[in-house]
Amino acid sequence: MTPVFELPSVVVDRVVALALEEDLGSGDLTTEACVPADAQAVAHAVARSAMVACGAGVAARVFARVDASLAFEAHVADGARVEARTRLWTVRGRARSILMGERVALNLVQRMVGVATQARAYVDAVPAGCATRIADTRKTTPGLRALERYAVRAGGARNHRDDLGAAVLIKDNHIAACGGVRPAIERARAAAPHTAKIECEVETLAQLDEALAAGADIVLLDNMPTATVIEAVAAVKRAGGRALVEASGGVTLARIPELARAGVDAISVGALTHSVPAADVGLDFE
Amino acid sequence: MTPVFELPSVVVDRVVALALEEDLGSGDLTTEACVPADAQAVAHAVARSAMVACGAGVAARVFARVDASLAFEAHVADGARVEARTRLWTVRGRARSILMGERVALNLVQRMVGVATQARAYVDAVPAGCATRIADTRKTTPGLRALERYAVRAGGARNHRDDLGAAVLIKDNHIAACGGVRPAIERARAAAPHTAKIECEVETLAQLDEALAAGADIVLLDNMPTATVIEAVAAVKRAGGRALVEASGGVTLARIPELARAGVDAISVGALTHSVPAADVGLDFE
Amino acid sequence: MTPVFELPSVVVDRVVALALEEDLGSGDLTTEACVPADAQAVAHAVARSAMVACGAGVAARVFARVDASLAFEAHVADGARVEARTRLWTVRGRARSILMGERVALNLVQRMVGVATQARAYVDAVPAGCATRIADTRKTTPGLRALERYAVRAGGARNHRDDLGAAVLIKDNHIAACGGVRPAIERARAAAPHTAKIECEVETLAQLDEALAAGADIVLLDNMPTATVIEAVAAVKRAGGRALVEASGGVTLARIPELARAGVDAISVGALTHSVPAADVGLDFE
Amino acid sequence: MTPVFELPSVVVDRVVALALEEDLGSGDLTTEACVPADAQAVAHAVARSAMVACGAGVAARVFARVDASLAFEAHVADGARVEARTRLWTVRGRARSILMGERVALNLVQRMVGVATQARAYVDAVPAGCATRIADTRKTTPGLRALERYAVRAGGARNHRDDLGAAVLIKDNHIAACGGVRPAIERARAAAPHTAKIECEVETLAQLDEALAAGADIVLLDNMPTATVIEAVAAVKRAGGRALVEASGGVTLARIPELARAGVDAISVGALTHSVPAADVGLDFE
Amino acid sequence: MTPVFELPSVVVDRVVALALEEDLGSGDLTTEACVPADAQAVAHAVARSAMVACGAGVAARVFARVDASLAFEAHVADGARVEARTRLWTVRGRARSILMGERVALNLVQRMVGVATQARAYVDAVPAGCATRIADTRKTTPGLRALERYAVRAGGARNHRDDLGAAVLIKDNHIAACGGVRPAIERARAAAPHTAKIECEVETLAQLDEALAAGADIVLLDNMPTATVIEAVAAVKRAGGRALVEASGGVTLARIPELARAGVDAISVGALTHSVPAADVGLDFE
Amino acid sequence: MTPVFELPSVVVDRVVALALEEDLGSGDLTTEACVPADAQAVAHAVARSAMVACGAGVAARVFARVDASLAFEAHVADGARVEARTRLWTVRGRARSILMGERVALNLVQRMVGVATQARAYVDAVPAGCATRIADTRKTTPGLRALERYAVRAGGARNHRDDLGAAVLIKDNHIAACGGVRPAIERARAAAPHTAKIECEVETLAQLDEALAAGADIVLLDNMPTATVIEAVAAVKRAGGRALVEASGGVTLARIPELARAGVDAISVGALTHSVPAADVGLDFE
Repeated sequence: MTPVFELPSVVVDRVVALALEEDLGSGDLTTEACVPADAQAVAHAVARSAMVACGAGVAARVFARVDASLAFEAHVADGARVEARTRLWTVRGRARSILMGERVALNLVQRMVGVATQARAYVDAVPAGCATRIADTRKTTPGLRALERYAVRAGGARNHRDDLGAAVLIKDNHIAACGGVRPAIERARAAAPHTAKIECEVETLAQLDEALAAGADIVLLDNMPTATVIEAVAAVKRAGGRALVEASGGVTLARIPELARAGVDAISVGALTHSVPAADVGLDFE
Repeated sequence: MTPVFELPSVVVDRVVALALEEDLGSGDLTTEACVPADAQAVAHAVARSAMVACGAGVAARVFARVDASLAFEAHVADGARVEARTRLWTVRGRARSILMGERVALNLVQRMVGVATQARAYVDAVPAGCATRIADTRKTTPGLRALERYAVRAGGARNHRDDLGAAVLIKDNHIAACGGVRPAIERARAAAPHTAKIECEVETLAQLDEALAAGADIVLLDNMPTATVIEAVAAVKRAGGRALVEASGGVTLARIPELARAGVDAISVGALTHSVPAADVGLDFE
Repeated sequence: MTPVFELPSVVVDRVVALALEEDLGSGDLTTEACVPADAQAVAHAVARSAMVACGAGVAARVFARVDASLAFEAHVADGARVEARTRLWTVRGRARSILMGERVALNLVQRMVGVATQARAYVDAVPAGCATRIADTRKTTPGLRALERYAVRAGGARNHRDDLGAAVLIKDNHIAACGGVRPAIERARAAAPHTAKIECEVETLAQLDEALAAGADIVLLDNMPTATVIEAVAAVKRAGGRALVEASGGVTLARIPELARAGVDAISVGALTHSVPAADVGLDFE
Repeated sequence: MTPVFELPSVVVDRVVALALEEDLGSGDLTTEACVPADAQAVAHAVARSAMVACGAGVAARVFARVDASLAFEAHVADGARVEARTRLWTVRGRARSILMGERVALNLVQRMVGVATQARAYVDAVPAGCATRIADTRKTTPGLRALERYAVRAGGARNHRDDLGAAVLIKDNHIAACGGVRPAIERARAAAPHTAKIECEVETLAQLDEALAAGADIVLLDNMPTATVIEAVAAVKRAGGRALVEASGGVTLARIPELARAGVDAISVGALTHSVPAADVGLDFE
Repeated sequence: MTPVFELPSVVVDRVVALALEEDLGSGDLTTEACVPADAQAVAHAVARSAMVACGAGVAARVFARVDASLAFEAHVADGARVEARTRLWTVRGRARSILMGERVALNLVQRMVGVATQARAYVDAVPAGCATRIADTRKTTPGLRALERYAVRAGGARNHRDDLGAAVLIKDNHIAACGGVRPAIERARAAAPHTAKIECEVETLAQLDEALAAGADIVLLDNMPTATVIEAVAAVKRAGGRALVEASGGVTLARIPELARAGVDAISVGALTHSVPAADVGLDFE
Repeated sequence: MTPVFELPSVVVDRVVALALEEDLGSGDLTTEACVPADAQAVAHAVARSAMVACGAGVAARVFARVDASLAFEAHVADGARVEARTRLWTVRGRARSILMGERVALNLVQRMVGVATQARAYVDAVPAGCATRIADTRKTTPGLRALERYAVRAGGARNHRDDLGAAVLIKDNHIAACGGVRPAIERARAAAPHTAKIECEVETLAQLDEALAAGADIVLLDNMPTATVIEAVAAVKRAGGRALVEASGGVTLARIPELARAGVDAISVGALTHSVPAADVGLDFE
């Protein structure tokens, strides 16, 4: 089974090269000394606990970059929930090459699985019947944004804007610089591409009303207690209901159900990428 | 006060550029629309909780790369323990530039502080009087190895080998390929630079004896219960005590005291870098 | 006067380095032979015809990369209309360095001015009272997208989505793959970030109705005669008027007035960047 | 039929990667949402008007970099004149990959065809029986010099020097710095490689005589009226006829016949690359 | 026969690309003009004198980067001693591609063979029965460290530390900064990874004793006459013999036997890489 | 005194970064442990023997890249002959930074001085009264071509063509592919830029006559005995004397006088760059 991998190689290859240069740039003293050049091996990536599979395609590229003659096979699609002891993928070929790429492949996969698994937990915390989506933020690991956003999607969550050029998000400093919510939204609408949504962070219901009146496409409720969130959702409906409502600000897993029930369209969670325990994926040699 | 920053710019600049390209490569729609080109600002990085300071020098480079005219000042040395609400550093100048660099600077600093703070916790768990050092592993975030290893040191822990070319570490697959611990160590000693230490992972006391007899510089006790670790330390002493003893394998904070008291020279902890909650550092504009 | 330049250096520097390597990577035989190392010079960039100024900040970086000791001063803000013989910027210092950077600086500036000037012409063709904006497309010169989009804005036009990840634009092949306009829009809304607008290209009024019913944020009228465009604008109004209307497809300057009067919100013009005569900017040495 | 492509991959790959990063660096929201991962497609590049084919080899590399499993076939050799509706090349495979690479491939090919087609027009304007060659200049698009020079050759024109290190071209500032044409040529001959030709720009017939006397390999007649060009050609013949004569300076297509008949060896035309309308090449999916 | 090549492609590819850009970045005027695009060729790399084979794997990558369709076959393993007229490797395919890659491939191979052959001479100068190893230093050609260190090993010598981060080497300036040999060693032991050996350069026997007492893992005898080296080796034995003894400092081939007989463990020789005559390897076309 | 350095930074910086990444990419264990962060130092580069100074500008860039606060001063111009114990340049500032950049700076400078000094020896071997120039070849160290060509010039020699795109050089394989010297020259003249000289390698006097008749700009006498060279020079004179005569092929220093007296215009010497002993330049700390 081939990994269904949607990241174009032109992006992945850059961070893969960087990671391999970090670890293998001076060769592998141990493997070169101890493993014959012609020794062959088969190694299986195995989930050591239950997890959401992710990143086989990236591992495939790591091994291909070390040694193009290695054969790689994925056994599980990205996004699948697997039990402990599941084989995720297998790499076969020159033993030296597998050993040289092992750590980099695992460092990437463990992080991607970690992100996907954690995202899954947040998504699963949304009560049945709620249409709320869980979204990531720009709090990604520098250099790994594309991989982490992919893992977020593999875990069933959705992405927020990719970068500062993909959508408008007006925050407190922008509001202050413009002298209010309305002028900030108006300036953004005039200057930004008509293809870009305009999201505005609000801290009070008064700001919310101003944002809605100015035609914000999305309102971001920043760090509001649930009761206020409920009021805000109602205010948006009263205003015609065109704007999407996003809640954010130090959201924990425990708060997901109540925020979802409050009727927000999206909850964005920095922890989805900024605080991720690595998943326990091991590489077992036959 | 200048940040005491030991990382040569040639290394930092590469990941800083990559991170800025990810976030700012298409410009900043919001800031360009809402903030006048000549607006000035002063922003302070503030610890939102107690933490170990780290990474001001990296933040300085991020802002310098966005706009060389920004002024940056660090208030706390890397490695210092600070209380919540401590100002870590200040950046002054064109408001647009500060806003454009904010997220990348924080993403890097929050991770570095997170690593330093967690390392500090492990180091502090070593009972007084024990000479045991806490060490990292190669389980670092791809692309960030140099920054994370620096943060580990800022937290009072020590680094393990930097990469596969810096020291020999013989693991189970190498032993299997050579047909035993002794031939593996002998081959490594013959092939590797005489400047490289030879460390050998052992899973049993029998393997330990074989590694000591073959002259391993370091023995790595892999996933051993504390009672076995104590036996192993005694065995090393009996053998002359020249080899360093390192314990590793899924070590948690809770096990640090007993492992340290068992007399190991070093405890290497993958979680020091592979599972790090981002520290809560905010950027407050005056 | 400083150039008001909004492009972060991290992006500009890459294409500047590439351009300098192309032209100067083997040195400058002539200048090294003929111009004394200590000769000083002052050179003024001069508009040889009426144009919209653009790109002084990029020229400044080119010269800085050749020789950091050169002094650079811009005399005209990006976006200003200037008459022939206007001085745009001045560079002073080592004559060799100015000569070595001249061609690369001019190649970049002539293209940026060309884009800005042409954009200005399209914008000026919009009749007074029409709110229609002129927008670029992804038909930019490979490697120069950020610079050309900046020049488009300097000329008073606006940008379309920056890249394939910034907004959804459903075209004929996507519609075919999904079996219709509605399922395409629905799949996109489910998968894409909630921060991304969903634009749908339509070739018939029936497709337009389907797109509006499915809640497209923007409808792209592809290659429609003006009469059909007028019908389409009316249909959008009937449907509630929430969707923006964009016209596109081989639009020439001559058609701008009638399309604008038809009431579209935006006209996107590939020629804004794909077919641009270089502006005549010369560098005169004192 | 294979594209006869003479550009070494090591050069093309760099700008291809840059262009793909610009457009596809954040993924393709639309295609990922709307096109099944296993959908297959066949797409044909088709000339929408008469043109000179060029750049199939570059398109092939773009698609290979997006997805190495795509199959690419060129139907027409670079440099061939084709009628409207001619199929230029075909790409087959995963529909997603073709859609992701389409814009970048077309942006490059449309520009290369545009350059080749325009070069062809200039070459065709040289009257039968004239040996005059049409040449490009260093006024190329930054980052695309190698591709544009290749396209110039595909259109039947010839290249001028590649960069500042490939040949000597003495201009007014160099002459001024040396105190005259003769010392400038002498200094250049002494310093430059003996493998480098020495070309000297002259603005008057007096300068021409001085350049010929000093042994210039090529004289560049800068912005001279045709009558003066004719005199200059005669002067070169009188001087022994060893020097090549090149005319340059704002040359339009209309002036090519008279300049060629005047007997110059080469006419260099900046517009060959600095002002090129993109050719209309479309990608039709079966 | 496949070249047994241990350098991971991720490292080799970078310098190969740089070298090809240098030489082929503007195309190959001669080959494009004179050799038909479809001409085929077979070319054999031949040793023009006796030498130690090295670098076939690097040559293979050069040709693959120019044209992936070329076939490459190595006939001799790296490290093998070959006589004059031995065929080292063969490349077959498009004649143009072979000619375009020839110079870069030979420049790399001639240097690698040169290093390997010279290393072999130093290793062969060690008298039978001496266990002394010949080692390289960090005096490598910038950009080629990995290739030259590989060639050193192919010649039978061994590597010293790879870079400043792989092992500690305390020199005179470090000793001065710490106020003595002992504090320098103690500080290094406290700060450096426990996986890093600590080597200390000594200029006198007194310094030697201090280094041994402080527990240096290696002592580097800097520029000592042989009689002093003999004394130093005796002092190390008296101290328990744990430290390795390395001699260095302007060592010539002629001094190798006496230094080896003096009993040092290693002799490090900067000339192994900093002063290497290129080996005479030619490329003969069938 | 400032170093008179003609290499544009855009080229030098790339190899400087590569070299620093090789050596300093993992930090400097020793210096960080032993040298206080605030220690200051002054270090002088000193010639340990007579040599031709070269490369101070490159050293300056190395130190600037490690630490922009270091101050650098050159005392001797590139190309100056200096006696042993001459101070070449001085660097001042943070001791750590100087120690971290020392090896890379010296590796580059020692090679550049080595090339310049050796070039000087060849140039000095040309008898007084002979106008013969000594030239380098494309046998440069991969990655260092620009630096080595600069050093060749500093030593008083001249450069040959920079790369395969800068001039035509027809060799045996090209002649074979075209079926003779004349068609090879004619094809090259038709295809190559008119700004490129056409050089043709000849192995016999018959080939020489054919090359001259076909109008070669330069004839390269390959591996001819001096008597034949004398005949060849006479043949060129008989043919009108327009072509330059270059001798090449395993030329040693000893043969320079006789080849120069034979009247050739240039002697190209591969050994100028492919076999260069590093010059002995040391860095002395005050």
